Order: sequence, then structure tokens, then C-alpha cells
Amino acid sequence: MKHIAESTVRRLSRYLRFLEDFEAQGHQTISSGALAAQGGTTSAQVRKDLSFFGSFGKRGLGYSVSALSTRIREILGLGRTWNVIIVGAGKIGAALAQYRGFRDRGFHVMSVYDADPARIGRALDGVIIRDQKELESDIARLKPDIALLAVPGDVAQPLVDRLVKSGVRAILNFAPAPLQVPEHVTLRSVNMALELEILSYELVNKRT
Amino acid sequence: MKHIAESTVRRLSRYLRFLEDFEAQGHQTISSGALAAQGGTTSAQVRKDLSFFGSFGKRGLGYSVSALSTRIREILGLGRTWNVIIVGAGKIGAALAQYRGFRDRGFHVMSVYDADPARIGRALDGVIIRDQKELESDIARLKPDIALLAVPGDVAQPLVDRLVKSGVRAILNFAPAPLQVPEHVTLRSVNMALELEILSYELVNKRT
Repeated sequence: MKHIAESTVRRLSRYLRFLEDFEAQGHQTISSGALAAQGGTTSAQVRKDLSFFGSFGKRGLGYSVSALSTRIREILGLGRTWNVIIVGAGKIGAALAQYRGFRDRGFHVMSVYDADPARIGRALDGVIIRDQKELESDIARLKPDIALLAVPGDVAQPLVDRLVKSGVRAILNFAPAPLQVPEHVTLRSVNMALELEILSYELVNKRT
Repeated sequence: MKHIAESTVRRLSRYLRFLEDFEAQGHQTISSGALAAQGGTTSAQVRKDLSFFGSFGKRGLGYSVSALSTRIREILGLGRTWNVIIVGAGKIGAALAQYRGFRDRGFHVMSVYDADPARIGRALDGVIIRDQKELESDIARLKPDIALLAVPGDVAQPLVDRLVKSGVRAILNFAPAPLQVPEHVTLRSVNMALELEILSYELVNKRT
């Protein structure tokens, strides 16, 4: 399959949310206009996004809600459970461990790690915080699909190296540090201070 | 000033972090190559990013660390304190309220709001959680620059409407819902489940 632009993936993910709501409400079909209105985009954009993956709609009848949501789940790789570990049980790590949005989308938090003895052994929403020293042996045993990294910037790269060496192939990074991974590993970064800085830039430079 | 692409703003923000480290270590100049190595980019990209804002470097001597960091802070609007309120004191709101990275960059959390009586009156890192009913009167009095929204998706839009009506002009949204704001308001969204979904898409479709 052709690689899809990230902006398209974001819209598909949004469409899926509405389709699930529509499904829950008992609707069987939905028009591109209704999807567009919910997604803050245009009917033409919706049709373009969806036509990319085959034909789902019938002119005048709209799209089949269940067929379309199944297909988008497939495209996004959501037809399965993804096993996730979280490294770092500070404020952000703890918020991630308890974030209901992950579980709702098939992301299962297997375990949480920290290096701080005061945190090790405590439970976060039923998941016990484990000693970071156990990372390598746990990864070998649990084979997580994705690691979320929520540690201070200065210890992030060594931890990434340990994760990669242990066979982790996808990392979502919340540490405020630029990280290097080999080609075969997928890395995404979320930096909340950076998001605020972009907002600050936009506030200062807003053309009004 | 010409509008800068978001990718450039992100790189500038990253350069600033290294410049601050270099400054703390007592360095007075830095080469584009050193900045590039830290930022995971190329010298040519660094020179291009920086030339956009005037001339900071001397061939062979590198950039002045202090002049360059001052200028980037100016560009990003970080030469001042931004007053921030947080709406929603659940897991994410609490993590945000206690996130040190914000304070370090001049973002000052003035107050936190929630609608849950069990949360109201409790303190998050020294900031008392206030009743969401006080939003309008507090905004009139405190005049925050930025509101962080960390509430469930289904109550997000009504809260955005209240914020906008009260005069808030910049919102960083963590609620998993598409939100509408008028033209004069700047809205950015961070959706952690969406970030995981993009990662999941990349894992499924990785060309190996």
C-alpha cells in the first residue's frame, strides 16, 4: 500500500471516532457531509481520503458505517491489541498509565518502570511499578510492541538504547530531548512544552 | 515578519535548548555543525533556519551563544512570562499543573479548574483547584494568556465556548475532540491516543 501522509492518518483517526459514535447510536449509513462536519473538514476532503482505500459509498446512500469503521481500524492497525510498556512513573508516566483513551483503542499497558526506589512496588491503576533494572529481562519475556518513554531528558537516550537493544521497535517519547534510533525503529515525540512554545510563537506573531 | 513554518519553529525551540546548555557550560560560541549534531539535522539546515532572522555568525568563528539564544527567545515569544490556566484537574490536568518543563520556559500556571466537588479545594503543586463555575469571573480578573484544556471530549466544546467568550485567545487542547474556535483564537491540540494510533499505523505499514 502507498504510504499515507500523517495529516490523512490523523483525519482517518478522527473519522473513526465519529463512526463509532454513529454505530453506537444505531445508524447504518453516513454521508460524507456529516463526516466532514464532525471532522472540521469538507465533503470533498472526506471523499478523497476514503477513496484512497477503495470504494465504500454509494452515491446518494452514503457510506456503510460498519464497513467503513472496520476498514479504517484495519488501515490504522487497530484491529488488534498493542502491548505497551511505560518507562518512567513520574507525573507524565503516571498520567499515561491511567489514561483511559489508550485502553479504549486497544493499547494495553503491560508494565511500568522507574528507577526511584520510592516508586517501585507502588500500583498505578492496577499496574505495579517495576524496577527499571528489570527492563531487559521483562522485554525479552513480555515482547511489548510499543514503549512510552516519560523520563527526564538527560536519561532518555541511554534508556532508548536499552529499549532498542532489547528489541523494542516503536517508541513514543515524552522526554524533552532529541533521540537517535536505528532505521528499523519507529520513534515519535510529544513535547508538551514545545506545543506551548509553538502556541506562544503564534500568539506573538499572529496576523490580526 | 514572514510566517515561519511549524517545522522551523520546532527546530528553533530545539536549538534554544542546546544553546542554553552551552551557555550554562560557559561556551561563548557554537558552530552550525555542533548545533546540527545536537538537533539531529544538517549544518546547512541550521544556517538556513538562522539566516532567516538576520546574521548571527562569523565564518570560521561560529555563532555567539548568548546573542543567538536571546534572538530565538524573542522570536518564540519567550522573553516574557505567559500566564496559563488549566481547565480540568484529572490525570492529565494534574500532570500538566505539575510539569516542570512549563515553568522552566516562562509558562506560569495561575490556576486550575474542575467541576468535581471532590477535587475542588485540593492543591496541585501549590496551586489550589478552583470551581469551574468561577471560570468567567477569574478570567476577567486574571487575564490569562493561554488556557490548557484537559477535560473529557464530550464537555470540551462548551468549555471552549466559555473560554472564548471570556476573552481567552489561545488554547492548548488535550481533550480527544475536534473543537471549533473563531478566527481570532489560536487552538492547538495534543491527542496522546492519536499519537499512539499514528505509531500503530506506522508499525503496521512499515516498509522493511
